[in-house]
Amino acid sequence: MEGTTNLSREDKILLIPGPTPVPTPVLRAQSRPIINHRSPEFHALFEELIAGLQEVFRTQQEVLLFTSSGTGGLESAIVNTLSPGDRVLGVSIGTFGDRFADLAEAYGAQVERLNFPHGTAADPEVVRERLAQDRQGTVRAVLLTHNETSTGVINDLPALSQVVREHGALLLVDAISGLIAAPLEMDAWGLDVVVAGSQKAFMIPPGLAFVAASERAWQARESARMPRFYFDWEAARKYAARRETPFTPAVSLCFALQEALQLIRAEGLERIQARHRRLRDAVRAGVGAMGLELVAAEECASPSVTAVYMPEGVSSKELRQILSQRYQTVIAGGRGQFVREIFRLGHLGWVDGMTVLSGLLALEMALRDLGLAVPAGAGVAAAREVLAGGKEGG
Amino acid sequence: MEGTTNLSREDKILLIPGPTPVPTPVLRAQSRPIINHRSPEFHALFEELIAGLQEVFRTQQEVLLFTSSGTGGLESAIVNTLSPGDRVLGVSIGTFGDRFADLAEAYGAQVERLNFPHGTAADPEVVRERLAQDRQGTVRAVLLTHNETSTGVINDLPALSQVVREHGALLLVDAISGLIAAPLEMDAWGLDVVVAGSQKAFMIPPGLAFVAASERAWQARESARMPRFYFDWEAARKYAARRETPFTPAVSLCFALQEALQLIRAEGLERIQARHRRLRDAVRAGVGAMGLELVAAEECASPSVTAVYMPEGVSSKELRQILSQRYQTVIAGGRGQFVREIFRLGHLGWVDGMTVLSGLLALEMALRDLGLAVPAGAGVAAAREVLAGGKEGG
Repeated sequence: MEGTTNLSREDKILLIPGPTPVPTPVLRAQSRPIINHRSPEFHALFEELIAGLQEVFRTQQEVLLFTSSGTGGLESAIVNTLSPGDRVLGVSIGTFGDRFADLAEAYGAQVERLNFPHGTAADPEVVRERLAQDRQGTVRAVLLTHNETSTGVINDLPALSQVVREHGALLLVDAISGLIAAPLEMDAWGLDVVVAGSQKAFMIPPGLAFVAASERAWQARESARMPRFYFDWEAARKYAARRETPFTPAVSLCFALQEALQLIRAEGLERIQARHRRLRDAVRAGVGAMGLELVAAEECASPSVTAVYMPEGVSSKELRQILSQRYQTVIAGGRGQFVREIFRLGHLGWVDGMTVLSGLLALEMALRDLGLAVPAGAGVAAAREVLAGGKEGG
Repeated sequence: MEGTTNLSREDKILLIPGPTPVPTPVLRAQSRPIINHRSPEFHALFEELIAGLQEVFRTQQEVLLFTSSGTGGLESAIVNTLSPGDRVLGVSIGTFGDRFADLAEAYGAQVERLNFPHGTAADPEVVRERLAQDRQGTVRAVLLTHNETSTGVINDLPALSQVVREHGALLLVDAISGLIAAPLEMDAWGLDVVVAGSQKAFMIPPGLAFVAASERAWQARESARMPRFYFDWEAARKYAARRETPFTPAVSLCFALQEALQLIRAEGLERIQARHRRLRDAVRAGVGAMGLELVAAEECASPSVTAVYMPEGVSSKELRQILSQRYQTVIAGGRGQFVREIFRLGHLGWVDGMTVLSGLLALEMALRDLGLAVPAGAGVAAAREVLAGGKEGG
């Protein structure tokens, strides 16, 4: 694109797996005048938020609200259910699975790691075999990622949960980038702890973590001896009974959440999930038609984010720079061992067909600028076909 | 006021010691489109924020940014400098001093408490005597509150710091409701850790905590064995070197902070502090003229918040209800042991003379509605005199 036709846009096309774009009504809501967090106005707001969160978590349990990133929610899951020295199985399919295990280790858990190759999902049979080796039943908890943001892979949570249930360990689930975008039935699937974050499919800015715990997890808390204060569940539950939080919550984000939960209810979880699947399929088709290689196989492809191998000889940093500067489009780089090898296209939250088509168009132009022989229009055409109602993946 | 002349206002007169009112330009800034927190745009923003924070902390040290309430920042101060079993002196002049000590205890510190009567400041001589008893020098840290929000008392931080310096323990300071509103010289006063929160004099919504540590505190971290992950300083410093945070930060609040730091620089710390002192003096004069009794003596009266004893026979809850519903004014109740005995008027952050005069007017009307013989106009008149340039307290 000619330099002279470019605006210095703040509102770039944001194709990253969080923080996601924020809908205008949500932006407006978060600008409401601040209220006292110990007042009847806040109590009414809090009650509405928790009820809405229970709907999307698909749970009857209290959902606790922490002012932190999602990682803070994960920390709460560890420190409220475990004691130093406890055996924990950390099932990892990427960077964020590794982080969850690191976190448990930082608090003194004895973590055994079960890592699956990046780009694949956790195999329930392999997890079953591993847990079967624990004849004494001393593994206290299994850490699982619902949707691995670093590789764009979604785990088969119902099957994995079934395996963990058979063993009897607690199942702690990092659902930060999966919840809402992909099905998750906390109560029906028997998940013990589910952690989510505001800046993902909730469509609000980062700063809030949401955590729900099963009866079993609350019972585990009784004897859990890891130290905790800011992320203590019991304090959160005590204050929740009077519709408050123990410490000053991110009030403006609570306003945003109220509005976002209304948008989510209006669209409906099923339609939201169908939209995410369709966008994923469109992105995968588009990227494939440009001759690029996908990291995740179709059967475990994430509805939130698609990881793509960098074409030979192209630098991820340069690609992202051209996309941002010439084509007003922001994509994510790789993480951890993948930092140079891949790039990632988020299609999470407040994203629709036109967002994704514009992003693919920008990607094509950037790759051609970099000297790659990408066929003109092929990516967009393939994605359009999917969006027009062609095949839909699982 | 007649019911028919009332609007159902969202923008009430907010006289609470946080979260404070947010200036319109800050509200607008926080609504900017979300950006990638791992992008050059964020790097430039981060650099500007840290430089601005160093200015208000009056420090050359790195200021770390955590997405949490202020309490999260306090937790970081404890877990990064101490080991389980360490002796700690918790100096408390109210609820928030107690909380800081509780926090250290939750992580296994051996906390000795030195409590001063509510409504008074910590006496440096008493602290000196207490520390002098520690002949072996085994007290590792002293916990101090800069400004105690529950009682409206400010501590004499330079004198207290001097005493702690003589002993050699680390000095950890909760400056959440004091920083910016009251003088604080981190480097010049030799404070080892200073913790602040966004929803106070920073004039932005809650959700960010700011923490700076001295060289001594960073050295203490080398051997500190309390567990930590989300609030780990070393991870924060490592990411700060590339102008990022380890975990997704509250991006919209970072936008707000950028704007607020510009407002703070434009007004200047000295003028901000003079404004807060003047507003405090006006509130104290006004409340006194209504015949109410102040909790804090003049020499230790907080520039951020004024605590007032409830008049005999009046319920705090009822007073706050009338103020909010009839007079669109929100004040704070008591905390802890003070929950029924006192009410608190915040004059912190984006608050000016008219805010305070309107609030005093509302308070007078509410008290008269409750049957108290408050002389009409006396409170506002006394406050006006102070605001018009009469005497200014210390």
